[in-house]
Parts: sequence; C-alpha cells; structure tokens
Amino acid sequence: MKALAFDAYGTLFDVFSVTSLCEQLFPGNGTALATLWRTKQLQYTLLRSMMNRYEDFWQVTRDGLVYAANALRLDLDVDTRTRLMDAYLTLAAFPDVKPGLQELKAMGLRLAVLSNGEPKMLASAARRAGIAELLDAVISVDEVKVFKPSPRVYELASAHLSLSKHSIGFVTSNNWDAHGAGSAGLTTFWIQRAAAEPAEELGYPPARVVHVLTDLPNIIRSF
Amino acid sequence: MKALAFDAYGTLFDVFSVTSLCEQLFPGNGTALATLWRTKQLQYTLLRSMMNRYEDFWQVTRDGLVYAANALRLDLDVDTRTRLMDAYLTLAAFPDVKPGLQELKAMGLRLAVLSNGEPKMLASAARRAGIAELLDAVISVDEVKVFKPSPRVYELASAHLSLSKHSIGFVTSNNWDAHGAGSAGLTTFWIQRAAAEPAEELGYPPARVVHVLTDLPNIIRSF
Repeated sequence: MKALAFDAYGTLFDVFSVTSLCEQLFPGNGTALATLWRTKQLQYTLLRSMMNRYEDFWQVTRDGLVYAANALRLDLDVDTRTRLMDAYLTLAAFPDVKPGLQELKAMGLRLAVLSNGEPKMLASAARRAGIAELLDAVISVDEVKVFKPSPRVYELASAHLSLSKHSIGFVTSNNWDAHGAGSAGLTTFWIQRAAAEPAEELGYPPARVVHVLTDLPNIIRSF
Repeated sequence: MKALAFDAYGTLFDVFSVTSLCEQLFPGNGTALATLWRTKQLQYTLLRSMMNRYEDFWQVTRDGLVYAANALRLDLDVDTRTRLMDAYLTLAAFPDVKPGLQELKAMGLRLAVLSNGEPKMLASAARRAGIAELLDAVISVDEVKVFKPSPRVYELASAHLSLSKHSIGFVTSNNWDAHGAGSAGLTTFWIQRAAAEPAEELGYPPARVVHVLTDLPNIIRSF
C-alpha cells in the first residue's frame, strides 16, 4: 500500500458541526434540520448523477438545505441560508484526523482527499482544519461531473497519484462509499464513527473496519 | 396526449400496506421497519445503478429489508423474511386507482406501468389489484438494467408504446421520479399522496400536481 485516499465529509470533516448553528437559528429544530439537510444532500448527488444533470456539491448542498427547511416548515431567508452554507466552508475536523494523517505521512504514504466536494469547498475545509500541507492531492468529482459511487470517481485516485489502484487504500465513514470504492477495485477501510451504524447490503463490504483514523497506521503496516 | 405511463410502487400500489404485517411480526416496530425498508430499497436502486452493479428490484427489496432489520436490531429469520417479501407480491392498490384507470381508458388513452419493479412482481401486483386488463404495457427497468431516474428508463415508454415522448404523460407519487421523467422529456403529473410532502429541488418539477388518480381525466382533457 503506497497511498491512502480519504473521503472528506463525515470522514475528515464533521458535517454535524453545523448542528449548533442550525439550533441557534432554529431553536428546537437544529438536529432535525442538520440531519435532513445531510440526507437530502446525499440523495441529490445520486439523483442528479442518475439524471445526467450534474451540478456541483455547493449547489446540491444548497438545494438540500432548501428542501430540508421546506419540509420542516422553517422560514429560510437569504441571510440565514448564506450563514448556514458558509458554515460548510469551516466544518470542524474530527480530533483524530490531524494526528492520524501525520502518522500515516511519517510512514511514507502519499495522502489524498477524494470527495464529492466542490474544489473550493474542499480547499477551504482542509486549510481551516490545518491538514492542507499533509495532502499530496485534493481530488474532486467535479473533474468528471458525476458523484460517488460512480466507478469513474474512484478511478481518479489512480490517475492523480500515478499509482495502480491495487496500491491505493480508500478510507471513508460512509459504508456505501466503501462498497463503491471496493466495487471499483480499491482496498477499503470503513471508519465506523457511529457505533450502532450497520453495514450496507451492497455486495462489496470494506476490507477492514476502524473507529478512528489513528487506528489505521497499525493496520496499514500489516498489509 | 395519447398515453399515460404510471409509476407502480407508491403510485398505484401502497407500499405501506406491508406496515400491518411488519407490526404483527415486530410489535412496536412496524412503522419504523416499513419506513426504513422503503428508504433503503430506494437508496439501493440508486447506489447499485451508480456502481454499475444492477440487481433486480426483488433482490434490492430483500437487501433493504435485511439492512432495516439490522439497523433496528430485529431478528429477521428466513421464514419472517419470506413472509415480508411475499407481502410485496400482494400490495394493496390505492382505492382511486381502478376507477381512475377505467375512466382514462374510456377516454381512449393507452395506459402503461413504467416501474423499477421486477417483471414478475409487477405482474403479480397488477393481477391482484384487478387492473391487469386495463394496461397496454407493463414496462420494467429490468430491460435496461438500470433504475430510475436514468433517462434510459423513461425512454422505454416511447419504445414500448410506439409514440413520441411528447405525447406520453408520466404519473408518479414520487416527486423525484417526476423530475427524472421531466428531465427525459415526458410531461409529468405528480400525485401528491401525502399532503405535507414538499417538492424536490432537482430542476425539473412536474407540469401538474394532483391528489388522486381520479383527478387526472379532467386535467388530461385540458392538455
């Protein structure tokens, strides 16, 4: 294993770090809004890809927010929408991310992000999390105009790192994303961040399950 | 407008007619199981399509049931799984379906089902609902091995009915399905069966919104 590619949202960056702002803006509805927003954001990446009507992750994230506010009958004016969207540019990184990446980097591995995110969103989040200098590549689906789990997305890792897919590991907290990458030929590691989360039934389960990023160095050494 | 194609599950057949069996088998968890089962069933159609790993709707429905039971920590033995799956072959039709189709048929329209369903599932459900003889075609995505909202699915309607897509209306209770068909060039009618359900933000909203199938004849006459 010569390189690791990481999913971004939910894996490196905590998408639910927007929940407190949601709660501040819509008291009593913060968790419901953040949860439905995230669900719709992901669903829209799939539906738009299937329709051959790609719009970038910024647009899809905004559309998901608009739907979620409508569904919960919350009044989302332009200022409020802007504040919530801007929060996506400064998501918190999980506490295990920076130390985990540092240790993996010290092992000589090349590190990349491989994400649905729009390039500017990814650059902003990586900079804020203080991990930009640890990354050899920040790869966005925007290059191929289709979202995960299209195999065209996972093939970008090989192309950008100039490595065979057999020497690239893919790390994600989204179990379906591991199935997608596994189906495309990468070796996959599932960060099960929510203990009770069951595995998906999609035929390509991850090779290994970890709970934090700092579990990876020992596992990678055994590969 | 010379023909109407109808989505099946949720539009003609009530997928939540399995809820009472779910409740009987898992007291206190019937609604949660039926809801999560349906969510996962749809999500798996999208994910498998994106992964280019099509399995038919029967398989995907079973996989969704297995996930839902795992997530809710319910013990799904083989007999229980079989009983729940068999319920999908005898779903109840909504009460407006048969009278609505009869009136549309009497207007000289050709009628079809255009569904994610596996062909045998569709044939069984149509027969049980007593609407099989009203249908000129029962069209399944199984023919193209990709699920909705791929444009390849909606193009099947033209091919099977030997009509231009401009003379075919598409009727669905799933708002995202209307966006998919609209994006593919069909004229779309959304049956909003749940009053509080908001529209999706996908760029191709339905041409008309109705609440029951028997609202359609008057609207079609005005087209």
